[in-house]
Amino acid sequence: MALLIATPDRDSEELGRLIRRQDPEIDLRVWPELGRAEDIRFVLAWKPPEGLFRQLPALEVVSSLGAGVDQLVDNPQIPGHVAIGRLAGPRLAANMAAYLVAVVVARWKRLPDFAEDQRARRWNQWAPEQPPVIGLLGTGEMGRRTAAAFGELDFPVHGYSRSGRGPAGVTMHSGTRGLHELAGASDCLINLLPLTPETRDILDADLFSQMREGSTLINVGRGEHLVEADLLAALDRGRPGCAVLDVFREEPLPQDHPFWDHPKLFITPHCASITLTREAAELAVESYRRVMDGKPPLGVVDRERGY
Amino acid sequence: MALLIATPDRDSEELGRLIRRQDPEIDLRVWPELGRAEDIRFVLAWKPPEGLFRQLPALEVVSSLGAGVDQLVDNPQIPGHVAIGRLAGPRLAANMAAYLVAVVVARWKRLPDFAEDQRARRWNQWAPEQPPVIGLLGTGEMGRRTAAAFGELDFPVHGYSRSGRGPAGVTMHSGTRGLHELAGASDCLINLLPLTPETRDILDADLFSQMREGSTLINVGRGEHLVEADLLAALDRGRPGCAVLDVFREEPLPQDHPFWDHPKLFITPHCASITLTREAAELAVESYRRVMDGKPPLGVVDRERGY
Repeated sequence: MALLIATPDRDSEELGRLIRRQDPEIDLRVWPELGRAEDIRFVLAWKPPEGLFRQLPALEVVSSLGAGVDQLVDNPQIPGHVAIGRLAGPRLAANMAAYLVAVVVARWKRLPDFAEDQRARRWNQWAPEQPPVIGLLGTGEMGRRTAAAFGELDFPVHGYSRSGRGPAGVTMHSGTRGLHELAGASDCLINLLPLTPETRDILDADLFSQMREGSTLINVGRGEHLVEADLLAALDRGRPGCAVLDVFREEPLPQDHPFWDHPKLFITPHCASITLTREAAELAVESYRRVMDGKPPLGVVDRERGY
Repeated sequence: MALLIATPDRDSEELGRLIRRQDPEIDLRVWPELGRAEDIRFVLAWKPPEGLFRQLPALEVVSSLGAGVDQLVDNPQIPGHVAIGRLAGPRLAANMAAYLVAVVVARWKRLPDFAEDQRARRWNQWAPEQPPVIGLLGTGEMGRRTAAAFGELDFPVHGYSRSGRGPAGVTMHSGTRGLHELAGASDCLINLLPLTPETRDILDADLFSQMREGSTLINVGRGEHLVEADLLAALDRGRPGCAVLDVFREEPLPQDHPFWDHPKLFITPHCASITLTREAAELAVESYRRVMDGKPPLGVVDRERGY
């Protein structure tokens, strides 16, 4: 049984080196050097090359290198009997929580204004009274971690999930009505949902109309969650008042895209939380061993549900 | 028994209104209207007016409106038998933790660089691998809360206290040697110590020489903890590599002070965490009732120790 790394747009060398160091016994292949393709039963993928899966007759498992699996679940070239998993470790979730806390608190406490005051030698004391209400779309691993981080700072946290289940201390909502309630209750609405047919375009005019005036939208899910034209129109109306976007329908964001110089948008280039090679290597070996033992891979996905 | 609010440099009206609303029975006075001075047994103070305490023969308790008590412990006009307390609620500590997490994570993830990239329409993905090691000077209420907030994000946390005791999960240090060990172990060294004769000038050349190259110093304690000339010289040598300062020996920071336009300094005007009027009113009433019942005030201070 061989393990193939197929991540054409990333440097696979370091990942391969770390996996080999952890377990020299693994028959490891790195795309495009497949070797005997019929040995390959486990693929570690990120934006896998077109046509790859058709060359692998013994394929049993494809694992995403990160938290997102939409590119795999949607992939018609992965046969239905193949299990799909993902490597979403605690550090990936903690890094996401750190990004979100930093972005939210910096805006709440207006930290960038202090940099301006400093340039002007202005002593302008200011502090907010009430913490913003956080609304989390999605309460999976990253959502739970993010809720805990905000909870530790005494920020009120609301959550939305399909099932309505969520972590302790979070006021949960579900269904379309619950989605609108969440939007109306939140000062910062954060999207951490998986991308599925149901959640595609969920950040649209309908949702924005329920948001609080001057509130903040943060999208760290997928670009396809957001209807871009709806957001531009909504920002003009002040609901939301501003947005922080880390993911986009087209990445890199095209040079002529109106988001770049929009005064109410803060853009980061899909790096709120990036898979850490060391963590990925550890989890990849763990997932591979599980499959060798006849168990499902780490973070196995319900292909029907899409996450 | 009367309660006096003596906070000349702050608006006392809202605080008085909230205290009255909570307990209309309290005989509340607001400086400069003392009424019958001999009724006053409890003073809620922040930068109290010169000569006030000599006018209060029945004085039993002075409570700081915030976490710092140095201005009271050092005050020769407060007789030795008078108890000193402070109102340091969970929200004050949570706000401090929020400020510190935001400042540290923004630098760690280089968030300001993304704003620059956005202006230049540059898609420049970057994320750090390892979280910075946090070193906390002081593990009181604010230190504990801050340690918990960083811990939730999986940042390693070291601490320093006089006793060497600290919260679970924090690697503790004490003594002069421990102080130097902490400085050498930390990527971000955060001062949250109370100001006492022992901690005055603790952030000096000796300590800076132990810090890591390119590390960050954050002072949210008191201006008098920091030897300003030593910091300027240390920044030139790169240990620390930069500093975030919220408190200063002279506040407001004088217009001609070299800190204002130093490229390695980020300044906020003593508002990392400001006493929230609502929280202060609740705690003031609680502390007053305790004293009425013959108990020590909230946050009672060991005047010998200084905190």
